[in-house]
Amino acid sequence: MAEKKGRTISRASRPAVTLRTTVRQEDSELVREIVTSTGFFRPDEIAIAVELVDERLRIGLASGYHFIFAGKSGRVLGYSCYGPVPLTLHSYDIYWMAVRKEEQGAGIGKMLLERSEAAIGELGGRRSYIETSSKELYGATRRFYEHCGYRAEATLREFYSPGDDKVIYVKAIGQ
Amino acid sequence: MAEKKGRTISRASRPAVTLRTTVRQEDSELVREIVTSTGFFRPDEIAIAVELVDERLRIGLASGYHFIFAGKSGRVLGYSCYGPVPLTLHSYDIYWMAVRKEEQGAGIGKMLLERSEAAIGELGGRRSYIETSSKELYGATRRFYEHCGYRAEATLREFYSPGDDKVIYVKAIGQ
Repeated sequence: MAEKKGRTISRASRPAVTLRTTVRQEDSELVREIVTSTGFFRPDEIAIAVELVDERLRIGLASGYHFIFAGKSGRVLGYSCYGPVPLTLHSYDIYWMAVRKEEQGAGIGKMLLERSEAAIGELGGRRSYIETSSKELYGATRRFYEHCGYRAEATLREFYSPGDDKVIYVKAIGQ
Repeated sequence: MAEKKGRTISRASRPAVTLRTTVRQEDSELVREIVTSTGFFRPDEIAIAVELVDERLRIGLASGYHFIFAGKSGRVLGYSCYGPVPLTLHSYDIYWMAVRKEEQGAGIGKMLLERSEAAIGELGGRRSYIETSSKELYGATRRFYEHCGYRAEATLREFYSPGDDKVIYVKAIGQ
């Protein structure tokens, strides 16, 4: 009981993580900020991340881009972007996932990934795909996906640049 | 000499195939017509083919969609659409290729593919990717790509729908 109470107090002392799926004008700059903070992405990659938000703001869900923003005390800490793969019956891509550098390691990425998969399942999706790089820089990222149930299904050699393959991960949803 | 003369006459008697890389308003409907004529594509696939033309007309080469139209006597017989894969150094996708049903088998598809690859090489591309379905309906298409030097590098099981895998073909360009 004491332990349980202790955990409860400990939890109550931390503000809860809240999720939001609507997209606002300011998310464009927020996404730029979060993605940049990770130190992982090149300027052309950051530009693409922002472009997906802008496209969603411009034409709504017809863009095919769904978002989940995770926040705490009104501050957005990370987000995911996913959507149906055109011309497929039930394949979804998780296009982007990022958590502010100083907030990493607290389970926010895992929560975002699980919520994205649940949403994909609710939309009728059966397969979730994530593409990433074979480079050592992405080693922790790949292990994270594997830990979350993803399997490397295909590798396209030298896809990104010489020595930088594309690895395609897949996870079956709701089966 | 006689044989050569004979060939020349035979060639002269057929109008030459001309290529065009500019994109015009009417290409939107032309592409719909050509793609529909093949009998290969579903309405949602045809809509995507047309969408690529519209996007190119809307924002130009910033769309990332390059086109080659093959025509004879002023009539467009087929086309290809290709472009750089975002976030890669020198990978290109051949997004679409179609030849009017009644003009197939005359080498127009091969000419379009070779011209697309040459253009990719001129743009600095080193790898040309084509994605297609594993279904029997696409057997001749896959053999055509293989005949043109493409190699099936990866297969994503059940990507399009149950029993319908995505096969990713690749060809090294200018190496």
